[in-house]
Amino acid sequence: MSFDLVIRGGTVSTATDTFRADVGIAGGKVAALGDGLTGEETIDATGKLVLPGGIESHCHIAQESSTGMMTADDYRTGSISAAFGGHTTIIPFAAQRPGQSIADVLRAYDERAATSVLDYGYHLIVSDTSVHDFREDMGKAFDRGVTSFKVFMTYDIRLTDESFLDVLDFAAGAGALTMVHAENHGMIDRLRARFGEEGKLAPIYHAHSRPEAAEAEAISRAIRLARFAGAPLFIVHVSSAEGVAEVARARAAGQPLHAETCPQYLFLREEHLAREDGQKFICSPPLRDDVTAEALWQGLATGILEMSTSDHSPSNYDETGKLRDGGKDFRKVPNGLPGIEARLPLMFSEGVVKGRISLQQFVALTSTNAARIFGLVGRKGTIAPGADADMAIWDPEETWTMSQENSHHAVNYTPFEGFEITGRPKTIIQRGNILISDDTLHATPGDGQFLERARYAA
Amino acid sequence: MSFDLVIRGGTVSTATDTFRADVGIAGGKVAALGDGLTGEETIDATGKLVLPGGIESHCHIAQESSTGMMTADDYRTGSISAAFGGHTTIIPFAAQRPGQSIADVLRAYDERAATSVLDYGYHLIVSDTSVHDFREDMGKAFDRGVTSFKVFMTYDIRLTDESFLDVLDFAAGAGALTMVHAENHGMIDRLRARFGEEGKLAPIYHAHSRPEAAEAEAISRAIRLARFAGAPLFIVHVSSAEGVAEVARARAAGQPLHAETCPQYLFLREEHLAREDGQKFICSPPLRDDVTAEALWQGLATGILEMSTSDHSPSNYDETGKLRDGGKDFRKVPNGLPGIEARLPLMFSEGVVKGRISLQQFVALTSTNAARIFGLVGRKGTIAPGADADMAIWDPEETWTMSQENSHHAVNYTPFEGFEITGRPKTIIQRGNILISDDTLHATPGDGQFLERARYAA
Amino acid sequence: MSFDLVIRGGTVSTATDTFRADVGIAGGKVAALGDGLTGEETIDATGKLVLPGGIESHCHIAQESSTGMMTADDYRTGSISAAFGGHTTIIPFAAQRPGQSIADVLRAYDERAATSVLDYGYHLIVSDTSVHDFREDMGKAFDRGVTSFKVFMTYDIRLTDESFLDVLDFAAGAGALTMVHAENHGMIDRLRARFGEEGKLAPIYHAHSRPEAAEAEAISRAIRLARFAGAPLFIVHVSSAEGVAEVARARAAGQPLHAETCPQYLFLREEHLAREDGQKFICSPPLRDDVTAEALWQGLATGILEMSTSDHSPSNYDETGKLRDGGKDFRKVPNGLPGIEARLPLMFSEGVVKGRISLQQFVALTSTNAARIFGLVGRKGTIAPGADADMAIWDPEETWTMSQENSHHAVNYTPFEGFEITGRPKTIIQRGNILISDDTLHATPGDGQFLERARYAA
Amino acid sequence: MSFDLVIRGGTVSTATDTFRADVGIAGGKVAALGDGLTGEETIDATGKLVLPGGIESHCHIAQESSTGMMTADDYRTGSISAAFGGHTTIIPFAAQRPGQSIADVLRAYDERAATSVLDYGYHLIVSDTSVHDFREDMGKAFDRGVTSFKVFMTYDIRLTDESFLDVLDFAAGAGALTMVHAENHGMIDRLRARFGEEGKLAPIYHAHSRPEAAEAEAISRAIRLARFAGAPLFIVHVSSAEGVAEVARARAAGQPLHAETCPQYLFLREEHLAREDGQKFICSPPLRDDVTAEALWQGLATGILEMSTSDHSPSNYDETGKLRDGGKDFRKVPNGLPGIEARLPLMFSEGVVKGRISLQQFVALTSTNAARIFGLVGRKGTIAPGADADMAIWDPEETWTMSQENSHHAVNYTPFEGFEITGRPKTIIQRGNILISDDTLHATPGDGQFLERARYAA
Repeated sequence: MSFDLVIRGGTVSTATDTFRADVGIAGGKVAALGDGLTGEETIDATGKLVLPGGIESHCHIAQESSTGMMTADDYRTGSISAAFGGHTTIIPFAAQRPGQSIADVLRAYDERAATSVLDYGYHLIVSDTSVHDFREDMGKAFDRGVTSFKVFMTYDIRLTDESFLDVLDFAAGAGALTMVHAENHGMIDRLRARFGEEGKLAPIYHAHSRPEAAEAEAISRAIRLARFAGAPLFIVHVSSAEGVAEVARARAAGQPLHAETCPQYLFLREEHLAREDGQKFICSPPLRDDVTAEALWQGLATGILEMSTSDHSPSNYDETGKLRDGGKDFRKVPNGLPGIEARLPLMFSEGVVKGRISLQQFVALTSTNAARIFGLVGRKGTIAPGADADMAIWDPEETWTMSQENSHHAVNYTPFEGFEITGRPKTIIQRGNILISDDTLHATPGDGQFLERARYAA
Repeated sequence: MSFDLVIRGGTVSTATDTFRADVGIAGGKVAALGDGLTGEETIDATGKLVLPGGIESHCHIAQESSTGMMTADDYRTGSISAAFGGHTTIIPFAAQRPGQSIADVLRAYDERAATSVLDYGYHLIVSDTSVHDFREDMGKAFDRGVTSFKVFMTYDIRLTDESFLDVLDFAAGAGALTMVHAENHGMIDRLRARFGEEGKLAPIYHAHSRPEAAEAEAISRAIRLARFAGAPLFIVHVSSAEGVAEVARARAAGQPLHAETCPQYLFLREEHLAREDGQKFICSPPLRDDVTAEALWQGLATGILEMSTSDHSPSNYDETGKLRDGGKDFRKVPNGLPGIEARLPLMFSEGVVKGRISLQQFVALTSTNAARIFGLVGRKGTIAPGADADMAIWDPEETWTMSQENSHHAVNYTPFEGFEITGRPKTIIQRGNILISDDTLHATPGDGQFLERARYAA
Repeated sequence: MSFDLVIRGGTVSTATDTFRADVGIAGGKVAALGDGLTGEETIDATGKLVLPGGIESHCHIAQESSTGMMTADDYRTGSISAAFGGHTTIIPFAAQRPGQSIADVLRAYDERAATSVLDYGYHLIVSDTSVHDFREDMGKAFDRGVTSFKVFMTYDIRLTDESFLDVLDFAAGAGALTMVHAENHGMIDRLRARFGEEGKLAPIYHAHSRPEAAEAEAISRAIRLARFAGAPLFIVHVSSAEGVAEVARARAAGQPLHAETCPQYLFLREEHLAREDGQKFICSPPLRDDVTAEALWQGLATGILEMSTSDHSPSNYDETGKLRDGGKDFRKVPNGLPGIEARLPLMFSEGVVKGRISLQQFVALTSTNAARIFGLVGRKGTIAPGADADMAIWDPEETWTMSQENSHHAVNYTPFEGFEITGRPKTIIQRGNILISDDTLHATPGDGQFLERARYAA
Repeated sequence: MSFDLVIRGGTVSTATDTFRADVGIAGGKVAALGDGLTGEETIDATGKLVLPGGIESHCHIAQESSTGMMTADDYRTGSISAAFGGHTTIIPFAAQRPGQSIADVLRAYDERAATSVLDYGYHLIVSDTSVHDFREDMGKAFDRGVTSFKVFMTYDIRLTDESFLDVLDFAAGAGALTMVHAENHGMIDRLRARFGEEGKLAPIYHAHSRPEAAEAEAISRAIRLARFAGAPLFIVHVSSAEGVAEVARARAAGQPLHAETCPQYLFLREEHLAREDGQKFICSPPLRDDVTAEALWQGLATGILEMSTSDHSPSNYDETGKLRDGGKDFRKVPNGLPGIEARLPLMFSEGVVKGRISLQQFVALTSTNAARIFGLVGRKGTIAPGADADMAIWDPEETWTMSQENSHHAVNYTPFEGFEITGRPKTIIQRGNILISDDTLHATPGDGQFLERARYAA
């Protein structure tokens, strides 16, 4: 047999196994694993790791905030940055503005996503369940493979418990998964108001205004609402020990429940907001402390947290973004950090190289679990015959310094500036096509395909 | 490339993936996965499932009880029964009698194990830490790959907390894993005494004498002792909702902790002990009820329980075994059920076919997790290049009735008599050798090899 | 020394002690306890119990619902009924209508309360924190002794978390106690809507529409909000095992938190709503089952629940009340049960006589704890020198049948019709005045005085 | 009416009430509370507090250790010290030596107790359930009013779970209460052995050898054993946050369970053991830290811990006691602190004066709860007509410095040396007799009477 492409001599790792094998690719799919495979084209992976391409399931790309500001990355730059970071799949959000029909939302995002170099899907953010044809359009979205929704418990686009239940109810009926940003709005609102009155507006007060107690309450409530609705639930960016404990307790009782954390809660700290450029580190939930980070690592190690996603949400550190209103009032600073290019090297270097997680766990946390939970099993997230030939070839020993200079996103800073990293994705292959090699992008905007995702079955 | 053996056309499943592929085997190892592989020998697996061979990590074979009675199965019959049940690896116990040196124990079991048709290892049961050269011999046992120990909190061979801590302490230092049979001896002892005084000696009182509260206390204490010692712990045959909850709570707090349940707690019930042949169902912990079974299923589904093992412990239903002392006094009936041949078909039929767990979860619960936890990663428990070619080819649709007649163990009954099963392991391959095909055993006693297992690293 | 009145020969009980003593009263206060006291007037209490008069701290009197319907009892009939039931103090609610100023609320209730025969205070129900002079009027209310507030998490008058926090924040600053009706509005709203669509409108669906899960979520959230605000909290009418557990957990962690249940959750059952006259039993939270009742008894016995109040909320079983809209649609049936006259005999007969609680616990649960928690320590809720001479003299052995006929409320039924009772309050004394004796009321409307309650210090 | 003795003009406090009243005493009992009482003798208590005499229910007096060493205090000195500390009742232990019959134990302690100036009872320490006539003698002990037993889970006199269950079983049948010293023996034993091997023998290693984890395990187990036996349980000297949490959890579930802590865990710290005279502070469980102390205060404030007892266990700081074997090896230093005279002033000064507990809570924690739990309700622990006239008249404002000089125990130091105290018991009255006034003892050894305590009914 001959293959279109053979990755030769590498060490392959999946969520279960690590083994030496060539990977034979044909028709864009993994066709064989074994020794001595030959193909029309060959990549020498001797001494390298051949991993499933990362799946970034939590990123904001070409998405506008409620004030109309666009993320710094569009689908072209966002997907390219993701690819350089070791990904082959992204699942950004398609966000409904209040009043906007679901059909309109998808139309808008289909246009925006046309420039993606990576395969992509959408999670549909629902902010208004009262729009015309809501349930009908939701059904159509689900039928075309948008099988996960997201709701917020804070911000202007938050849902009431009633509307949250409506989404959960629809999801339970359809077979969809509902994601939730869980922070208690009331607590945050009152702290923001108080800090406002007291003139405490520096970036650090952003952190103080969103305590772990606010997250814990909302996680507890979201879990109870989902149990009530008989619907599976996914809790995004858990950033508190009590949050992890709430998830653990509900999972132990058999509730279908998933949760993730993000590298920023593992590697950055509240203190960063006290820096002069503290605005760069404003995200929600806010950065925490060492104790919380340790609890999150425990959650990852024991499988209670099933992913570590970037929550990539880029705005420039200048007057178009973080400093738009001068940056003096934390309440006006756009939330969110860039990180789609950083997360895999960070998790590899701090997790695998430092011995906190195994290589298989790394693959599970960054790729396989996302495929399982978000309806891409068998296609993405693994290296096995029949799966899409989506891979990242890593040099596990390259040491380098993370910086804005060597980043490919469109935003003008990285919060992980100066991090010393061991391990780097070098060659990126999507459906058998070499997207990146030798630090060079070979893809054309639009190479990415929309992914019709299967119903929730994790 | 050509292979020694090719399994053609089947659907391969691992703990992560399910895919269509031929499996190429060379030198006793999986050499390739892909389409169109050819070899000297070929097995047609069209329409079949090709699964990693089961690893039975909880079975009593050629082991004598404290009263000197041998299990009905020796390594020959036990391993053959296991093989017919879809296994390729067994890890029985090497049990220390009080006073016996550890070196003696292993010598004795090495002799007994020489007739195994399956690859095997031992868990070392420690019942006396005061014997000569204890720590030195434990070190030697560990060095030759006996990297897991087991202790009892009840029975005559129970350890005090002090000795339990000594074992945990040694294990923590060496990198070994300690397993524990957790039931509170005091509670059981007092109930047995009371029932004795009251003449309540029928088999059903066996169940009443070992309440879930006794297990829950001992699990709680074992977890605390292991935390104190900084040692990983494995809790065998969890059979109570409170036990699952205790495990979940400790795991959520980051403790290195594993636990299993057994098919009898899922599929049989306390009521079985009230039957005329109730002695057949006497095992410890005893059979429970529907509520407990549901909690155990939840534990398996959510990954809190990582295995479902047989706890195969066979004694005949006659005067050589269960009825040795007439069977009228539950306190004199040997404990334990046979089940090594039944467990995989039961879990497949009731779990996968009935939709309670996925095929990948089945593989994880019956094979891959045992390899990961008991030091066989990369060699056993998966189908990936480089791993031992240990496989069971299943017909997923064959329906059959489980019975003593179609069992291969040496014991004279099965507690699962009459269970209607869908799915059956048909061809068993160990290191590339066909052990079983067409209902025929092709192996010779002694074909099994001793497995030097790696230190604990799960 | 001579006294105005001596209660001679009875057995006195407080929350701590039970002892034989005469009670000497002078100037409306308890002046002495001892043997052989003499006074101008004497009541022979030989063979009787002399107990602190009950304090009913949860009752709705002369209160209109959001639809404008008045409770069947006004202050005259309500306080008379309470007195016949063994009370000497009532603390009904003064309820703010949305938009109404706090000053207006108190003015209105001062008028209504002018006919009370019992001493009284108000808990102020806050339904709108946006009204003119809110904080200033709240301060004035507090200054005149209205030191407890109440908020709702469901119904039209529910507060958002934000407004709930505002009340808690004010209370924490002032030294007031906030009470909360905790049920998750979203869950209930969605079930009501669904049952409406499905035509499930019989009274039993009232119970189904307000599951224990709704209460448990709201209790959990309220506790978290109070902890966040650093404010003490009182959870009214707990009616779920999970609710008790949430309270226990927070109290164990040191949070200043109180909770009560009501006799209807102990003595009536969900099944009552399936009767032809099921409307009579519609209250919120709804009636539950035996398992819940047992958990509530445990909560009372162990002190986690500190009171058993009536939640007296009377509307007639006719077209002016329960059947106003025909009674066919549970959503239109006014909520609430009468019970102010029944609660003490019920708790005495079922609690003390049947041995579930001690006589001292009865006194604590029905009188002393309310005095401690609601700012009446030293004045009400005990029989000790200096305290108001508020007493109920009980015949502990009289057996009788509870019925509408022997009730004194203005509403036309009792949900406890036919209950066989042992023990009965016979003589009621308020500040040394005999209000009731020989089944005859000696009081005049207006005899009751407004109680300026102290700040929270329990 | 005239009284034998009137305490005039004081402020009386019980567990429920605080009020101004004279107390009239006749026939050794409280006869009246009221104003203007007159008697043959009068004590002016103007400006003073009149409190129920303290009940010290946890003290070791005239008790020998397993090595035969006697406590420094006998019944004469111990009771005198207790009286000066504000007590009127003591319940020391009558301790069984292994092998000794229960009848012998009581005979021996009856002799020793004959010199007590205070009324007394015994808790019977059971260390050997295998002695002749065990159950018969236990029955006789119970019948004469020894209605509480104590067992140890550590030390040489520890019981196995089996024997512990036997005691619980007997207690459940008889109506007795079982107290338990809960520390896991295995953990402590192994740490002691390790520290011994490592030459870590200074007093501070005493603390390190008995971690909170050891207490938490044993508390958890004791609670489970008692639940299993259906027996009430009392956990002595809780000294860990996890211990408090275990108690809270079980109480919330309705288990009849009581627990106490001691002043040393509130006011002294582990650091004291690092002092040169660290031996003075060796007690078990050992002193802890600020975090634990805070958790214990919360436990007291919320009623989870129902007493704060001294665990008075005096041995001299010299070669007859703490330094008997040179004091260099913590394992040979006798355990225990003196504190019977200190506990009430400490709790008053640090608790009531500093606002952590109310005066009523102080009375409950030091007197009333002990009476309720240990079968003295109605006789001791309160000031109410009919109760024994046992009182301590306190000057609430006197400030003084606690020291060995102003202590009356027989031991030669106090661990609370130098504590600045506000509030002091000045006059002590037992059954109407003035035991102490003007710093002078008026009692004669033998004035104390044995208390036949009632069965457990708390």
